Amino acid sequence: MNANPRIEQLARLALEVGINLEAGQDVGVVALTASAPLARAVAARAYELGARYVDVAYSDNRVRRALVELAPEESLDWVPPWRVERIAYLAKNRGALVQIGGDPEPNLLADLDPERVGRAARPTDLNATLLEAINGRKLNWTIVAQPNEGWAEQVFGERDVGRLWDAVAAAVRLDEPDPVAAWRDHLDRLAARTAQLNERRFHALHFRGPGTDLAIQLLPQGRWRSGALETAWGRSFVANLPTEEIYTTPDWRRTQGTVRTTRPLALRGTVIERLDLRFEDGRIVEVNAPAHSDVVRAQVDSDEGAPFLGEVALVDGTSAVGRTGITFFSTLFDENAACHIAYGSGLTIAVEGAEGLSPEELRAAGVNQSRIHTDFMIGGPEVDVDGVTETDAEVPILRDDGWVLPTA
Amino acid sequence: MNANPRIEQLARLALEVGINLEAGQDVGVVALTASAPLARAVAARAYELGARYVDVAYSDNRVRRALVELAPEESLDWVPPWRVERIAYLAKNRGALVQIGGDPEPNLLADLDPERVGRAARPTDLNATLLEAINGRKLNWTIVAQPNEGWAEQVFGERDVGRLWDAVAAAVRLDEPDPVAAWRDHLDRLAARTAQLNERRFHALHFRGPGTDLAIQLLPQGRWRSGALETAWGRSFVANLPTEEIYTTPDWRRTQGTVRTTRPLALRGTVIERLDLRFEDGRIVEVNAPAHSDVVRAQVDSDEGAPFLGEVALVDGTSAVGRTGITFFSTLFDENAACHIAYGSGLTIAVEGAEGLSPEELRAAGVNQSRIHTDFMIGGPEVDVDGVTETDAEVPILRDDGWVLPTA
Repeated sequence: MNANPRIEQLARLALEVGINLEAGQDVGVVALTASAPLARAVAARAYELGARYVDVAYSDNRVRRALVELAPEESLDWVPPWRVERIAYLAKNRGALVQIGGDPEPNLLADLDPERVGRAARPTDLNATLLEAINGRKLNWTIVAQPNEGWAEQVFGERDVGRLWDAVAAAVRLDEPDPVAAWRDHLDRLAARTAQLNERRFHALHFRGPGTDLAIQLLPQGRWRSGALETAWGRSFVANLPTEEIYTTPDWRRTQGTVRTTRPLALRGTVIERLDLRFEDGRIVEVNAPAHSDVVRAQVDSDEGAPFLGEVALVDGTSAVGRTGITFFSTLFDENAACHIAYGSGLTIAVEGAEGLSPEELRAAGVNQSRIHTDFMIGGPEVDVDGVTETDAEVPILRDDGWVLPTA
Repeated sequence: MNANPRIEQLARLALEVGINLEAGQDVGVVALTASAPLARAVAARAYELGARYVDVAYSDNRVRRALVELAPEESLDWVPPWRVERIAYLAKNRGALVQIGGDPEPNLLADLDPERVGRAARPTDLNATLLEAINGRKLNWTIVAQPNEGWAEQVFGERDVGRLWDAVAAAVRLDEPDPVAAWRDHLDRLAARTAQLNERRFHALHFRGPGTDLAIQLLPQGRWRSGALETAWGRSFVANLPTEEIYTTPDWRRTQGTVRTTRPLALRGTVIERLDLRFEDGRIVEVNAPAHSDVVRAQVDSDEGAPFLGEVALVDGTSAVGRTGITFFSTLFDENAACHIAYGSGLTIAVEGAEGLSPEELRAAGVNQSRIHTDFMIGGPEVDVDGVTETDAEVPILRDDGWVLPTA
C-alpha cells in the first residue's frame, strides 16, 4: 500500500470509473517516470480487479529532451516500431489503456530550438495508431494525472504538492464521500446537457469576447457527446478524469473569424501563455503569440488536416475543475474549466454514421483528418457563446460562465 | 549535466568501452526505474557520440512485485509481444543495447510465494530472443549498474550511496586517471590469460574446497574467452562493466560432484545466501539451501536444459572487484571477484565452429541449450582449482585466490 492514500483512491477511480476494467483484460499503462507511484498502484489494483496482465511503459521527459536537443534531425519524429506495436496489440485484443500524466517539468524544452521542438511534436505512426484505436473504439481508455512538486510549483509558485493534491482531488471528485457514486450523478448531468443540444440542432456556434469573434459551423450529422464513451463491444468508460466538457465535431471547411486563448496551453514541453488565431474558410491562416508561436506553427503545418478544427467543446463555470479557481497548466484539467476547440483530427464518435467510413469519406463528410489533435481554451466569463438556429437566430448558451440555454 | 560527475563518467564508459558505440547506431537502454539518472546520461552522451536514436525502456520492480503477488497464475511467465519485438528490432538493425542494473530493493519478492517467484523467473520468449541475439552476435551490448541507497544498504548495512559509488568506481576503474586506457590494458591482460589456457588444452577442471569437490569436463572444441567480444559485423565491445573473468563452455553431459556457493546469489528479487548442488552425469540432482531453494528448483526445472551447466569461469583475487573486498550482492560484480559456474544456456561464442549450428546440433556437440542462464560463485581463497591434462595429471591454476599456472 502507498503512503499517500489519495494515490490508492485515484488508482481505483482510474480503474473503476476511468477504464471501467473488465475482468480478464490486458491493461497498458503509459506513465511519466515522475508518476511511478500512481502507475504502481494502478498495476496492483488492476490485478485485484481481475486484469490478466498489466504492462507499464514509462516515458521520460529528460530522455525526450536529449532527443530534441541532440538527436539527428531525421530522428526527431521517428518512433520505435515496438511502441506502435504495443498500442496495436491492445487494440487487437480488447485491451484497456491508462495514461498517467502530471508533468514535473512543463518548461523543460523551452530553451531549445523551436523548430526541433515542433518537429518532435509532429505526427507519428504512434499517434496514428492510437487515434485509429480510439476512433475505432477498440480500447477502453482513460487519462489521469498524479500531482508532483514540479507541477505544484508551476501552478502555485511553490512546491506545495499537498495543496495540488487537494485541488486535483476536488477536480476529480475524490473528496466526495462516495466518488464512484458522485461520478455516476455527474455523468447523468452531462448526458442531460448533450440531449438538450442534440434536440436543438444548432447549425453553428458563435463565440464573442476580447480578441474573439468566431463562427463555427456544425455538421448536420454531428452529435454532442460527453466523456462517457463505449467500446465497440459495449463496455462503457470515461476517457478523461476529470471531464466536464460536452463536445462535438465541427465542419472543418467552414470556421471563420478570430479567436484568443483564455488559458495557457502546455504543448510538448513549452507553455504558450497566449495565442491568437485567425481562420479563413476553416483554415488557420494566422498564428500569433508573444512566445513559442513557432511550436504551434510547426504543428499546424505538420500535415494536410492539421490547420483545421476537429473539435468544439462547451464547459461552464460550475464544473468541479472551474470551481477550484485554479489554472492547472495541464490541458486535461484546464479544458474542463473552459470552452475549447482543437485543431487536428475530428472525433468520429461525435458524428452519426461515421463509423466504418474511410478517411477520405470522412473528410468529404466534413470530419477533419489529421495525425494530431491539440486542444486550447477559448472560453471564460468574458466570452459569450450562442447557438445559431436554422433561421439564423442566435440563442444564448453561455453567459458569464453560466449555462443559460432554456429547455426547448 | 548531472549533479554527480560519476554518473556522466559511467555513462561515457558504458558507451565508449562497453558497447563501443558506432556512429549511426540505434541504442536500446533497459534500465530499472531507480537508475533513471544514468539512463538519461547514457541517452544524452549517446547522441553526442553519433547515435541515430536512443530508446529507453524502464523496468519497475514494484510493478513486477504486483505481477508476482497478484496476477493470474498463467500470466506469471508471459511477456508482452512488444518487449520481444524491441530486442528483435535491435538485433535486425545492428543496434546496441545498454542494460542498467542497480537494484534498490533486492529482497522485494522475499515474502512472496516461492513457486510464483520461480514461475515468474522462468524462461520466456524475451529471454530466448535476447539469447539468440547475443549468441548470434547481432548486438554490441553491455551491462552496467548505478549505485543507489537501497543497494548501499544491502551492501554496507547503511544507506551510504557515496561509499557504494567509491566501490563501484574502483571496480570499473573509473578512479584511474584515464579509465578508457586502463580498460585497454586490463583487456590485454585478460587476453594473455585466455591465450595461456587455450594453449594448455586442459580436458577438465577440478574445484576443491569446503563443500566442493567438482569435476567439470571441458569440450575439445571449447575456447577460453574474456568479456571483450565482437559482433558478427566486427565491432568489438565489452559485455560487462566490470569484467574480470575468463570463461568457457563445458560439456553439459559430464559434470560430477558437489559444489557450494561462496557468495550470496541475488536471483529475481530474492537473495540466496548459500546454495549446495550435487551433479550426476552433468545434471543437478540435488538443490539445498537454508532459504529460497524453491526459487532455484523452479528455475532448474523450467526446461530440459536448465539443470545442466553452460559456463565455467575463472577469476583470481587480484581483480579490481576482488580488491574492493566487498560483496556487492549483484552477480554483475560478485562473479568478477570469484570463480563461478552457470546452469542453463551454453555460450556458443566460447565454442569453435559453433556459429550457425542448430540448437540440436549444438546440444549434440555438448553445448547446453536452455532459455535461462544463471551464474553463481564457487571460488575464493579456500577453493583450489586444477587443470586436468590428457594424461590425467592435475596442474594447479588457482591457489589462495592467486593465479599460479606457469607458462607452458
